[in-house]
Amino acid sequence: MRISDLVVDRLPLYARALANLDSRGRDVVSSQELGDALNVSAAQIRKDFSYFGRFGKQGRGYNVRKLLDELQRILGLNRQWRMALVGAGRLGRAILGYQGFGPQGFRIVEAFDSDPAAIGDSVNGLVIKPTDDLEATLRSKPVDIGIVAVPAEHAQTVIDALVRCGVSAILNYAPIAARVPNGVHLRQIDPVLALQGMTFYLRAEASPK
Amino acid sequence: MRISDLVVDRLPLYARALANLDSRGRDVVSSQELGDALNVSAAQIRKDFSYFGRFGKQGRGYNVRKLLDELQRILGLNRQWRMALVGAGRLGRAILGYQGFGPQGFRIVEAFDSDPAAIGDSVNGLVIKPTDDLEATLRSKPVDIGIVAVPAEHAQTVIDALVRCGVSAILNYAPIAARVPNGVHLRQIDPVLALQGMTFYLRAEASPK
Repeated sequence: MRISDLVVDRLPLYARALANLDSRGRDVVSSQELGDALNVSAAQIRKDFSYFGRFGKQGRGYNVRKLLDELQRILGLNRQWRMALVGAGRLGRAILGYQGFGPQGFRIVEAFDSDPAAIGDSVNGLVIKPTDDLEATLRSKPVDIGIVAVPAEHAQTVIDALVRCGVSAILNYAPIAARVPNGVHLRQIDPVLALQGMTFYLRAEASPK
Repeated sequence: MRISDLVVDRLPLYARALANLDSRGRDVVSSQELGDALNVSAAQIRKDFSYFGRFGKQGRGYNVRKLLDELQRILGLNRQWRMALVGAGRLGRAILGYQGFGPQGFRIVEAFDSDPAAIGDSVNGLVIKPTDDLEATLRSKPVDIGIVAVPAEHAQTVIDALVRCGVSAILNYAPIAARVPNGVHLRQIDPVLALQGMTFYLRAEASPK
C-alpha cells in the first residue's frame, strides 16, 4: 500500500510522544490526548494509524508500548543508521556535535571537507577526511544516509557523488533545490524557507486586506 | 481567502527559483520549467499561483520579474525582519554565523544565553545577554521572530517567554512538540524527524512486503 508522505512525516512525531509517555510509565493513551500533545486532531491520528491496521480499539485507547514498538519497527527506529557528513565548517561541526542523533540510532561515521585547514582535524572523535576521498571511502564502507553541509554552490556536486556511492537518503542543509534520481530520498533543512513560510502570515496580519 | 499551509510553504521555493532566474537575466519562464527545477508538477505550480490571481497567461509563461516582485510582496520578503536568538551554545553560534539570513532580510538583533560562561561573549558583533533579561529587552525593543536553540527541557519555557513579549513567529530547533497559542506561528527545525521520515522508506526498501 502507498502511504502519503504527509502521514509518514507525522509518524516520527507520534513515536516521540509515545516514547515520552512510555518513559513516564503510561500504559494507555487516547487519540484525543495524543492529538492535544501534538497539535493534531484526534480524528487525524486515528486515520493515520488506520493505515497500519492493528493498533487500538474504539473507546479503549491505544496500548502505548505496543503502538510504540510497531511505530519503531515501521520507521526503522530499532536499528543503527550509518551516516556520512560532507562539509565540516561551522554548520558541519554543529551537526557533528549534535547530541540528538545518537540516542535515536543515527551515527555519523565519516566526515569530509575540502578545506586543507579542516582536513585531519578531529571533531568529537572523528577525523575529517578530504572530500576527494569520499567516493573511495564510501564505496568500501557504505553508509545509509548522507548529510550535506557544504556551501550552496558545491551542494549538487556532493549530492551526485553520494548518489553514485549508493546513498539513498540525503539530508541537505544547503539552500538549493537539489535534484536526486528516483528512489533516492531527500529532505531539506532550510531555516530561511521556514522563516519565509511564517512571514507570509506576519505580513498578512500586519496589513489585513 | 484562506490559503493552505502547504501552498504557503511552496511559495518561498518559487521565489528562490525566480530570483535565481532573474539574476541570470531570464525574462519569462514556463510552469513546466519552474516545476522541473523544483520537483513540483507544472499543474501544481499553475494551481498554486492561481490562488493569487494575477500572474501569467496560458501558453505564454510567466514574467519572471513581475512574478518575483509579487511573491516577495506576498511573503514579506521586501523588508527587514528583526530576530532574537535564545540559546548561544554550539547550535546557537552556528545560527549566529549563518550567512543565509542577512541577504533574505532576516537579522538577528539580540542573542541570549543562561550560561554565565557565554554571557558577555561577542559573536559576529552581537554581545550575548543573560536569558533573565530577555523579557525586559524585548519589551523595550520588540522583535518579529524568535529563534529557540536551547536544550529541549528549557524550550517550552523560552517559547512562553517569547510569546509574552509579543513575538508571533518562532523558529524552534529544540526537539519538542512545542505549544503556542492561536495566532502565534511556529516552525520546527528538527533533523532527527527529517531522518526518521526517510528511514521509513529505507526500511521498506530493505525488506519489501
